[in-house]
Amino acid sequence: MSKARIAQLPDIPINKNIIYPPHLREPFAGRAKQRLGDAVGMKNFGVNIATLEPGAWSSHRHWHTRQDEMIYLIEGELTLVTDSGREVLKPGAVVGFPANAGEAHNLINTGTKPAVYLEVGDRLPGDDVYYADVDLEAKQNPPSYRFTKKDGSAY
Amino acid sequence: MSKARIAQLPDIPINKNIIYPPHLREPFAGRAKQRLGDAVGMKNFGVNIATLEPGAWSSHRHWHTRQDEMIYLIEGELTLVTDSGREVLKPGAVVGFPANAGEAHNLINTGTKPAVYLEVGDRLPGDDVYYADVDLEAKQNPPSYRFTKKDGSAY
Repeated sequence: MSKARIAQLPDIPINKNIIYPPHLREPFAGRAKQRLGDAVGMKNFGVNIATLEPGAWSSHRHWHTRQDEMIYLIEGELTLVTDSGREVLKPGAVVGFPANAGEAHNLINTGTKPAVYLEVGDRLPGDDVYYADVDLEAKQNPPSYRFTKKDGSAY
Repeated sequence: MSKARIAQLPDIPINKNIIYPPHLREPFAGRAKQRLGDAVGMKNFGVNIATLEPGAWSSHRHWHTRQDEMIYLIEGELTLVTDSGREVLKPGAVVGFPANAGEAHNLINTGTKPAVYLEVGDRLPGDDVYYADVDLEAKQNPPSYRFTKKDGSAY
């Protein structure tokens, strides 16, 4: 049998899991992801197809110290929110968030239909995540992250 | 100005470059790639949208020692060729080639229309590439690879 791993997109589970502490989960009720890379055995990066219902957010605004992150908007409208302001994205937009940029970002579905986008991020070890708008920090704790308040104390 | 890098897919150059030695380039004349990740500053991984004309190949059959590789077939038909045989892929197929599997693979457009797929691969250092059907090996030589014959001698 081939060592290549094959999956069909419709068979990949729809994941609505939210890993943030409970009081920070509200903007993500309308977020769902299919984890394509995980479905076919990828360890070094994640490739997801994400869907945001109108009003839903991709994440709290954040940046990564070591990991690159990229999105490609397939359908719908997203607004990119950074420290520099807001920018409306249309299908075909590709956005890169280089590691250690020191500038937080997220994406909000400001349209009237679901927004579907591809997201890719690597999994280099030792990654920390800094959040701009909420009292939250994350340190890599494979296969996920451990969240604390900014002073390091536990939630 | 935001540190996020934004590109629009139609503006990303179409790259028909073939990095193999000249006598091994024939199956790739009908291969074209848009390098989405590179266009928006990604260093840790590559994300390409690739198009194969009927008959064109994705690569010579190979496997990577350190890097994971994944494809997602958007439109058209591809045949996956591995040491275990051939399998026809339809749109929606996701295929993962985990690092160090020791099994070579490539994709051939066996359909009658162009095949369009997404390909993602990380860029972990120290990666070697072994080829199954041609006298070729590759060692990482950032940002590309250095090719030799299997005995290590130069082309």
